[in-house]
Amino acid sequence: MQVSKAVITAAGRGARQYPASDTVQKAMSPLVDRDGLTKPVLQIIAEEALASGIEEICVVVAPGDEAVYRDQFRTYANNLRAAYRDAKWADDQARKLLELEQRLTFAVQAEPKGYGHAVWCAREFVGGDSFLLLLGDHLYLSAEPRRCARQLIDLATAEGCAVSAVQATREHLIHQYGTVAGRRLAQRTDVYAIDEIVEKPNPTLAELRLQVPGLRAGHYLCFFGMHVLTPTVFELLDELVKGDVRELGQIQLTTALNILARREKYLALETKGSRFNLGVKYGGVEAQVALSMSGVDREQILAVLLEAVARIERASPR
Amino acid sequence: MQVSKAVITAAGRGARQYPASDTVQKAMSPLVDRDGLTKPVLQIIAEEALASGIEEICVVVAPGDEAVYRDQFRTYANNLRAAYRDAKWADDQARKLLELEQRLTFAVQAEPKGYGHAVWCAREFVGGDSFLLLLGDHLYLSAEPRRCARQLIDLATAEGCAVSAVQATREHLIHQYGTVAGRRLAQRTDVYAIDEIVEKPNPTLAELRLQVPGLRAGHYLCFFGMHVLTPTVFELLDELVKGDVRELGQIQLTTALNILARREKYLALETKGSRFNLGVKYGGVEAQVALSMSGVDREQILAVLLEAVARIERASPR
Repeated sequence: MQVSKAVITAAGRGARQYPASDTVQKAMSPLVDRDGLTKPVLQIIAEEALASGIEEICVVVAPGDEAVYRDQFRTYANNLRAAYRDAKWADDQARKLLELEQRLTFAVQAEPKGYGHAVWCAREFVGGDSFLLLLGDHLYLSAEPRRCARQLIDLATAEGCAVSAVQATREHLIHQYGTVAGRRLAQRTDVYAIDEIVEKPNPTLAELRLQVPGLRAGHYLCFFGMHVLTPTVFELLDELVKGDVRELGQIQLTTALNILARREKYLALETKGSRFNLGVKYGGVEAQVALSMSGVDREQILAVLLEAVARIERASPR
Repeated sequence: MQVSKAVITAAGRGARQYPASDTVQKAMSPLVDRDGLTKPVLQIIAEEALASGIEEICVVVAPGDEAVYRDQFRTYANNLRAAYRDAKWADDQARKLLELEQRLTFAVQAEPKGYGHAVWCAREFVGGDSFLLLLGDHLYLSAEPRRCARQLIDLATAEGCAVSAVQATREHLIHQYGTVAGRRLAQRTDVYAIDEIVEKPNPTLAELRLQVPGLRAGHYLCFFGMHVLTPTVFELLDELVKGDVRELGQIQLTTALNILARREKYLALETKGSRFNLGVKYGGVEAQVALSMSGVDREQILAVLLEAVARIERASPR
């Protein structure tokens, strides 16, 4: 099993987002990456994939958005070159943007029928291969030298099966996530065989059905937003889409993954790292602070934050 | 003298911006305002003007951008309503966006010939009135109950003359700003009669020509990015544009203001507040932290920052 394709879903129109701004606007928002370069969010996500061994990337978008993305990549690169005529970093970054733009494939989700439906829209791009699945509004910071996506791909290729990234999550937060019931493998403390997934469970249900032996008390295994999936998932999604099988009103990836868990070997990996959801209030600030604090601009971002706090104290009417 | 019109310049294409992203992208980036609502930057700037007594606003944009702005305002409002069907705050905010969109006038800067040229493009909108001039990538936080723009308008209407906002600025920073030579008025400690302005001076020149009696040692009066100007400025800009009179390669507002200072009463006000430049690295983060720290979400932003720092400590490989 080889994983050389990634799918990034970026078709959501408001439903998952706070603020409910345009999805393209969000994915193309500039953040300063660990290397100190300012990049659109989508580039940072794509580079997580490329740095993890991915060669081809498909972005699932709403109708009409492919042209908008391509135009924004080119505008961004042109503006960089115009503003910093003699700077090598600007030229390098502009070239990376244009190379990425040429390398991206887009798939259109014609109607907003749910996350499972969005993934299904990438079926022709993926073909018969296993693939990495990422979210267009999540960033990751690994706590080890390998990227989070690489940790997942390494396990998937070693075990030859689908793997979902999970993180031990406190009970009061699990209503936001897909939550996994499973058994820890004998040979590793961070890998679980998945028995079942429940989308956004309430605590009572979780206590009855989703307890995982070996986790700290009051903790559950929740999806981390990143998966390596086998092509089987498209057969399953195909059936869900054709039959319009919905849970909570939408065609869910979780529905398909529950069936996958019964058909195939399917593991969960406690990924070593942090996830930043850009779709929640202050998610962008949190991601930016975290990225910068772990990168070359650590001292600069600390100075900016301290200065911002000091300014307020100075500016407060006495 | 009455000030009921504002001009916001948002036509820059790269030259002033870090990152050199699209100007529209920047002006429409979402920030959480002091009231806890997520808004495009342009709305926050426009609300500074409206809260200061302004009734009509003109945005100077690059060719083709008016349609993009209008479309983004509507998309933003529609997404808010779609995502938060039953929330009053979302409906209110969507309505404000649509009202603002209807109220905005746009003027096109056909070629990027400099800041003075951009202001000149609003001459028909302004007509024979005095007007407030704001930058499309700067946010302000007042240190008193009146907004920064209101402080400026109050002085301009009381004195019946043009007023530029200034701030005492340390010598090593003045190469970034228009810097003012002037004499403090006898009756007020925060108002100066402007003699001369030098755009981005070096320290030697500043020491020779720009020292202002009464300021702390090593400090100069630098433009704060906000002005109330009389219609005379358009006569002066008209001559500069017709004669293609440039300084540092551009048609500068400063050139016109230097002539204005010799023709009319022209004051500088040390504005009580802080300025946030969204066009510099980490400017957006700094503005967001400062806005939130002085608003209803003070505790939430502090929690987010502390959590971000704690995450990094936890995530660092041991």
